[in-house]
Amino acid sequence: MSYHVPIADIRFTLKELAGLDEILALPGYEEASADVVDAVLRENARFVEEAVAPLNRIGDREPAVWRDGAVTTPPGYAAAYRTYAEGGWQGLLHPLAWGGQGLPKVVAATANENINSACLAFSLCPLLTDGVIEALLTVGSQTLRDTYVPNLVSGKWTGTMNLTEPQAGSDLAQIATRAVPQPDGSYRVSGQKIFITYGEHDMAENIVHLVLARTPDAPRGVKGISLFVVPKFLPAADGAPGTRNDVWCASLEHKLGIHGSPTAVLIYGGGKGEVGEGAIGYLVGEENRGLEYMFIMMNAARYAVGQQGVALAERATQQALAYARERVQGRAVEGSSGPVAIVRHPDVQRMLLTMRALTEGGRSLSYVTAAALDLANHHPDAETRDRNRAFYEFMVPVVKGFCTESAVEVASLGVQVHGGMGYIEETGAAQHYRDARILPIYEGTTAIQANDLIGRKLLRDGGATARRIQQEMRGTLDALQAAEATADAEAAAGLALLRGNLAQAMQAQQQALEFMARTAMGNVRAVFAGSVPFLMLSGILMAGWQMGRAAVVCHRRLEGADAASEWPREFLRNKLATAFFFGAHILPRAAALSAVVQAGAVADTCAAYADIA
Amino acid sequence: MSYHVPIADIRFTLKELAGLDEILALPGYEEASADVVDAVLRENARFVEEAVAPLNRIGDREPAVWRDGAVTTPPGYAAAYRTYAEGGWQGLLHPLAWGGQGLPKVVAATANENINSACLAFSLCPLLTDGVIEALLTVGSQTLRDTYVPNLVSGKWTGTMNLTEPQAGSDLAQIATRAVPQPDGSYRVSGQKIFITYGEHDMAENIVHLVLARTPDAPRGVKGISLFVVPKFLPAADGAPGTRNDVWCASLEHKLGIHGSPTAVLIYGGGKGEVGEGAIGYLVGEENRGLEYMFIMMNAARYAVGQQGVALAERATQQALAYARERVQGRAVEGSSGPVAIVRHPDVQRMLLTMRALTEGGRSLSYVTAAALDLANHHPDAETRDRNRAFYEFMVPVVKGFCTESAVEVASLGVQVHGGMGYIEETGAAQHYRDARILPIYEGTTAIQANDLIGRKLLRDGGATARRIQQEMRGTLDALQAAEATADAEAAAGLALLRGNLAQAMQAQQQALEFMARTAMGNVRAVFAGSVPFLMLSGILMAGWQMGRAAVVCHRRLEGADAASEWPREFLRNKLATAFFFGAHILPRAAALSAVVQAGAVADTCAAYADIA
Repeated sequence: MSYHVPIADIRFTLKELAGLDEILALPGYEEASADVVDAVLRENARFVEEAVAPLNRIGDREPAVWRDGAVTTPPGYAAAYRTYAEGGWQGLLHPLAWGGQGLPKVVAATANENINSACLAFSLCPLLTDGVIEALLTVGSQTLRDTYVPNLVSGKWTGTMNLTEPQAGSDLAQIATRAVPQPDGSYRVSGQKIFITYGEHDMAENIVHLVLARTPDAPRGVKGISLFVVPKFLPAADGAPGTRNDVWCASLEHKLGIHGSPTAVLIYGGGKGEVGEGAIGYLVGEENRGLEYMFIMMNAARYAVGQQGVALAERATQQALAYARERVQGRAVEGSSGPVAIVRHPDVQRMLLTMRALTEGGRSLSYVTAAALDLANHHPDAETRDRNRAFYEFMVPVVKGFCTESAVEVASLGVQVHGGMGYIEETGAAQHYRDARILPIYEGTTAIQANDLIGRKLLRDGGATARRIQQEMRGTLDALQAAEATADAEAAAGLALLRGNLAQAMQAQQQALEFMARTAMGNVRAVFAGSVPFLMLSGILMAGWQMGRAAVVCHRRLEGADAASEWPREFLRNKLATAFFFGAHILPRAAALSAVVQAGAVADTCAAYADIA
Repeated sequence: MSYHVPIADIRFTLKELAGLDEILALPGYEEASADVVDAVLRENARFVEEAVAPLNRIGDREPAVWRDGAVTTPPGYAAAYRTYAEGGWQGLLHPLAWGGQGLPKVVAATANENINSACLAFSLCPLLTDGVIEALLTVGSQTLRDTYVPNLVSGKWTGTMNLTEPQAGSDLAQIATRAVPQPDGSYRVSGQKIFITYGEHDMAENIVHLVLARTPDAPRGVKGISLFVVPKFLPAADGAPGTRNDVWCASLEHKLGIHGSPTAVLIYGGGKGEVGEGAIGYLVGEENRGLEYMFIMMNAARYAVGQQGVALAERATQQALAYARERVQGRAVEGSSGPVAIVRHPDVQRMLLTMRALTEGGRSLSYVTAAALDLANHHPDAETRDRNRAFYEFMVPVVKGFCTESAVEVASLGVQVHGGMGYIEETGAAQHYRDARILPIYEGTTAIQANDLIGRKLLRDGGATARRIQQEMRGTLDALQAAEATADAEAAAGLALLRGNLAQAMQAQQQALEFMARTAMGNVRAVFAGSVPFLMLSGILMAGWQMGRAAVVCHRRLEGADAASEWPREFLRNKLATAFFFGAHILPRAAALSAVVQAGAVADTCAAYADIA
């Protein structure tokens, strides 16, 4: 079925929750007016709906194919990628100086979400190119930037991230790929990398690999990893792709989903190219600081994958809702003269509203987080910058973990809404279920995110950021209470439940935080036994807060206190209902997750007791 | 990886929770001694591990293939089915008089679970044959029984259930297949049936279709549906398959999972056979009572699918645990001299223990439910029979709904434990994730189960059965409390948490029941808005109760009060830990689900408010 960019919800979330006006007023964004943003949104919607969305099923049925080291992407991918490049979409958030459009992160985030909704497998290519551009602009030498960045920003070339090796997945300390310095300042890289997304393809004239490897004298472990640029073709003097480098695609993985995206095994070295033995690479930044550089980029990449979760959830929700409106089956539970569309059945509504609540909750989280990065980078006041940076860093693992786990839940509900038809591949719901499953794994599993959240973001600042956020939430509780006073009975019930369950979720997080604070010193395993539940608790609470803020806005606008509202009444009622549902059905999970976190000591005992250890 | 029947847990659950000794003492089961049962378990384990388990990956990679109406099952399926038939496995729970072994339901349940763990796609064939046998023995005429039952029990022929049509899935009122009576007492059946599992295959010499259809003068709706036997080959005078009937496989579905199982579109009529136009069928029981007959069988079929959930969860758990023990990655969170097996990481332990807890919790539910059916059918005391029948009927939708939803969760966690490797099809974890997804759909979606639980099982008896079960649970709370008094500090903490969370889950169900009782009259939609959450709540509570009972037994045995225990100490510690974990991590969900149920009125408003309605 066709996909439509949910442009109303995107605009509402941008403006009413993520504070678009404030972002556009920041120094450095002078050229991005509200009109420009609206034009970008409209044009982006047209582009992804027409040029990208049709690729989704094609790529699933006709995966990328490897033959003799070359990879042919699914029909239509290469052409769509050219349109993407020509449209300037790759440059959306990159600096004007490098050929980009220099838009705020929060605006680029909307476009990033939409293209991923349209076709996740296709969109992985630009997503990785973004990461390479950011790495080079952050730590690359002037020469490296001049050589690679313009071609990456224009979409002429694409980029990849080469971290994983067979023995080094989540644990990068185990990386064994070698990089030997050469007299001319370059390095010869040799080794095997796996799970390299778009590691080989036919969509662009060159591929720029960012590769983690060790120099001969490097210290063991993570402190001996360096970062290199290894291009598929070495740029010639005129900048065009020249000599074939010694990096080769040995095979593609046969995956559960995202079939359109080639996941390559890359062999560095072997001497089959035109440069002799070993791929020629160029050091990025300084030796042995590769992991540190990767961490700089990692926030952006993890955030982007979190957005993929929102994107996939949106697509799955649209498909399920369309089917539920069309499929007639069974009578209404309250009685009906004949069979009704299944969207009338209470449990189908429960599933659809759960899907929508998790999707819109995730969207609000992701935009608010992107806005914080814009504020952290551009706000004139240093304290505001610091506060927003802390918020952004706190939120990245939450966006990545919560939105991707939610995507799996939403896609699974999408299959269920379709009943038996959902299990038939031609329907398309099953593809979302398969595609979604990679999201909580790549760019760091949910457990890795949770460790980051607890170890790096929470325990180190003693929970100060979390407490500050809770303080802000209390303002939303007050606003919800004020709204109840002027609401009709139905809306008041929804608002009261949302407020009550938000307050309960806040308390649940508070208790979990207290447990972790008092337990971390004595029994660190007991804390980490509940790390993922704590992350999910935090995601639910933060998304519930945003839905609470949305409810307040919708209620005010519906009351007509703001007759000039740009949001149609129907949209506002819809959004309000989704917020109520989030309060009624999603927020109660927080208390259960808190109980699980607080059971950490017993849970840890279980593993020791059992033969699981 | 290879699969091993979890024979220790099966025996423990049978004996300590499902009361095997009491079942074996029932009139009618005189020949089934404890020794016989042990021999059956051992022999069954050997058979499924050797002959069936290897089919699982093969069938996934080489699905059943349709060509010109004929279906070729995956390599090895036909041979394994012959071994199955020769071993007498199809007859396990069927009467001695019909060539079966007449074993208790609860014993047959173990074998059914194991073969499904070994290969879900393969096991669907015997599962459906069981249903046809039961239907014919319950409502078939003597002629129909004599003609078909012996060949089905022996495994010479297989059976199918033909309910679904394109416009009639969950809503059987829409069935349009026609059956026209003939002068000789037979009928001519014509129409199209879809999603017919093993509707055509090459594993047996004949296929016996049970078909729902309408006679020409039948009333509209569900009261005009009759049940027919339509054999692929009409039995000749000597009983062997004779003339080819007019039923044809038009195509197979391309499914998300269970690829080995052919899911057929069957066309009745068309005149291509040797009998002229229309498939020859024979009425089962009386006209227009087809749906009623299907309901008789439905409990058994739904129960069997619930068991498939347990079976798949077991297989996925075994695979994930084996991988986690083998895969070395990262240091221990509490510090370690080098990388450790990932089974040492707290979140991997959380996932594995969640998988195990849901699996063993589901197993205990399913065996206790099967035992209740044995008691309902064979106990000399009428009141005991009635009580057990009520329990069985209450539990069937819970076993079906809860165990299958759990299977999806477990299989998804299984992928996550594997990290990136889980997303690669060759690893096998992804297959479980795909296979599992059909379980909450077929034989009635979870929503259908929940409607049955609430509408038929709960509201009709005013919650009497649920209250009686809660009364029994209070005994387990007392026993847990007594155990705490003699436990060491670690075990006492686990027991106390299990008891506290079990008590809380009981209260959660109680409050949900009260909400439903007072709301059903005024706002039935508000009740059904929480039907699936209520089912899940009930499943968690019932399984938690069984895990509580298991904990009490394990604690007593470990204390040595019972030195002659047949359970190894290691097994008992393991089981105890799983029970603690169920208390710590799974039972807390009950309160959240209860809150959701009680939010029914708001949730229903949301759908009306939103554009979902």
